[in-house]
Amino acid sequence: MRMVDVIEKKRNGLELTKEEIKFFIDGYTAGTIPDYQASALLMAIYFQDMTDEERANLTLAMVDSGDVIDLSGIEGVKVDKHSTGGVGDTTTLVLAPLIAALDIPFAKMSGRGLGHTGGTLDKLESFDGFHIEISDEEFINIVNQDKIAVIGQSGNLTPADKKIYALRDVTGTVSSIPLIAGSIMSKKIAAGADAIVLDVKTGAGAFMKTEEDAEKLAEAMVRIGNLVGRKTMAIISDMSQPLGAAIGNSLEIKEAIDTLKGNGPEDLTELVLTLGSQMVVLAGKTDSLDEARKMLLGVIEDGSALDKFAVFVKNQGGNPEWVKNPELLPAAQYTFEVTADKEGVVSEIVADAIGVAAMKLGAGRATKEDEIDLAVGLVLNKKIGDDVKVGDSLVTIHANKKDVAEVEAMIKENIQIGDTGIAPKLIYKQIS
Amino acid sequence: MRMVDVIEKKRNGLELTKEEIKFFIDGYTAGTIPDYQASALLMAIYFQDMTDEERANLTLAMVDSGDVIDLSGIEGVKVDKHSTGGVGDTTTLVLAPLIAALDIPFAKMSGRGLGHTGGTLDKLESFDGFHIEISDEEFINIVNQDKIAVIGQSGNLTPADKKIYALRDVTGTVSSIPLIAGSIMSKKIAAGADAIVLDVKTGAGAFMKTEEDAEKLAEAMVRIGNLVGRKTMAIISDMSQPLGAAIGNSLEIKEAIDTLKGNGPEDLTELVLTLGSQMVVLAGKTDSLDEARKMLLGVIEDGSALDKFAVFVKNQGGNPEWVKNPELLPAAQYTFEVTADKEGVVSEIVADAIGVAAMKLGAGRATKEDEIDLAVGLVLNKKIGDDVKVGDSLVTIHANKKDVAEVEAMIKENIQIGDTGIAPKLIYKQIS
Repeated sequence: MRMVDVIEKKRNGLELTKEEIKFFIDGYTAGTIPDYQASALLMAIYFQDMTDEERANLTLAMVDSGDVIDLSGIEGVKVDKHSTGGVGDTTTLVLAPLIAALDIPFAKMSGRGLGHTGGTLDKLESFDGFHIEISDEEFINIVNQDKIAVIGQSGNLTPADKKIYALRDVTGTVSSIPLIAGSIMSKKIAAGADAIVLDVKTGAGAFMKTEEDAEKLAEAMVRIGNLVGRKTMAIISDMSQPLGAAIGNSLEIKEAIDTLKGNGPEDLTELVLTLGSQMVVLAGKTDSLDEARKMLLGVIEDGSALDKFAVFVKNQGGNPEWVKNPELLPAAQYTFEVTADKEGVVSEIVADAIGVAAMKLGAGRATKEDEIDLAVGLVLNKKIGDDVKVGDSLVTIHANKKDVAEVEAMIKENIQIGDTGIAPKLIYKQIS
Repeated sequence: MRMVDVIEKKRNGLELTKEEIKFFIDGYTAGTIPDYQASALLMAIYFQDMTDEERANLTLAMVDSGDVIDLSGIEGVKVDKHSTGGVGDTTTLVLAPLIAALDIPFAKMSGRGLGHTGGTLDKLESFDGFHIEISDEEFINIVNQDKIAVIGQSGNLTPADKKIYALRDVTGTVSSIPLIAGSIMSKKIAAGADAIVLDVKTGAGAFMKTEEDAEKLAEAMVRIGNLVGRKTMAIISDMSQPLGAAIGNSLEIKEAIDTLKGNGPEDLTELVLTLGSQMVVLAGKTDSLDEARKMLLGVIEDGSALDKFAVFVKNQGGNPEWVKNPELLPAAQYTFEVTADKEGVVSEIVADAIGVAAMKLGAGRATKEDEIDLAVGLVLNKKIGDDVKVGDSLVTIHANKKDVAEVEAMIKENIQIGDTGIAPKLIYKQIS
């Protein structure tokens, strides 16, 4: 087989066989196919797309390029959740104890955040002593006993995806549905998931700017999952503004605790219940999304979800008392209010820019080497569609420095007050 | 400027500026832009095409990437001719003395052939002693005095084109009109042409298989030429079967001499007169293609074109007597007739395959290192549309070996005799 023939076949709009896709992925991973042929094929895929069959074969070939995590020692259906990323997205922190409280195993590999979107692991380190350096055996034992644990990434997972991702970034081939879908799904499958729930964000703060593109990506991933034998569901959710109110590590932990108590922000609560219902259905606990939602509301109301969170923190080295008393979590020295200069309705909150403002306070990393400040961040007091009067607080800044002029200016610039403003729909669609 | 932004701009179907194209060509030539970004851009160009302005800027940027031949020491308008390649194409050998006889300078750089299409230089070496190792000064003096000379390629012409061509070959980006047109035109311009006549071949034996594609390429090149200040004309001509009758070096020289005497094959003669007329018009000798054709017929009839050929051969080390007595040219030891097995009409002659059959006799090179046999080759005795009876000779094989079974089988396989067959149109279109 010659790579140039594979490139020309795809360029001409024909369907690549499983063998041709494997030839590319294996050869590129091994270095026998050079970057310049890989990038030509990626650009041809950008223009000619891939069929469902090709997408599934691409995903499996990338899974096979490296190690696959074996979670077979864990009882029950391992349902993983993936979000395409957003600002202030605290969902995983709430979902984990919620579904564990329903006896569904939550066994997650987690990494650190980079840029303006925080990582789940960073947030959990707000609990002093929390760590993910546990052995595979210990991880499996904890999950079997308490249904919830997080472990650091180990093994050489999907090296093909890593190499292709780096190449796409410099060759203008990032925004291709089959390539994005294959990248996400291969990582989830290699991480050992039996079933997958996907939260595809859309809007100004998301990678997929339009609902149409988000839907295409979600449908692509659901079809890949089902084709390769992993039951997959997805939702399209809004990221035209940050989710919830808190942006920052310990601030988001507090928000997660509030939500587990039933007192969380309306949008975060709704998103968690929607995603959680899909996870409960995929885990085989019920066939009905409505029934699943009732089960989730039950473990919020009876306090067992919050208790599960405390057990989780305790198992991994944190102090469970902090879950009951969140005021013990790291807190910033200073708070500042960013107030409205005029009366009206909030018409726009630029999610990316608000995320960058929080990063500038120290809540996120600009480079991998940066240390983050767990205590700092932002709390939104108004969301799109809210009425404001002059002097109302739009955002509370939590800082460990006194000079926050730059951050304040950035926030003011990125929250628009107009004559009208309509709260965006939170869940655009559910796909299963 | 970042190359990834240039790639994305073209990928999105936008027009690249002169500066962006120059950034790519200069960076790629210098090695600061890697192959994998170049191939991604080439594939994006394949899908999104280029505007006339972009094509002209691409051509000029490739010209500027290396040396440009200075022919300003030669008086008159230097008209260059380019053919996209075919089998048995003897046109240059006839055109050169024809236009020189009309006092139009023919100053050509020439190279050797590779594969089943012969090179003009190889053919000329049928004259024992003919050589192109002459100084630039001598070259210019000869052209000024006798209007005709051929010199070997010197200097580092269009290094960007060489590098891009090699990359296209392995990345599935060869068959792109803007890239083909830019490649051809940059080489012609760097070689010092004031005006350019293009012979774009179409049909089974040509690179452009369809008339539509050939026309697109021809129009693209004519527009580039005129945009960058080099008057350019083109024709679309047939290559569904070999041109003329002879395929092989000294056999084609003999055919050229016949044609200069007015006794050449009908198709070769017509093609030469059509291309020659465009060259005469571009050289400013007349405004009328009809008038130009009469001038060309005049120098055939009065023998001055043949005399010019003899002077040309003499000036570059050959024996001019061989032009008057072509039987002195290298001749093969044996001839064999390939005869028709059935009665009917010739319906197909696969040009490529017939060219390969001649190469197998030794008339062409399979690799750069191969020595060629100037004497051997094929002469077609029938062309498409000719009636044949059983036993009629289809092809005469000129060989220096007795076993020509393989070549004979190849010829039989690639000449079809059917119930009907229509001689193809020779000139599909003229573009100016």
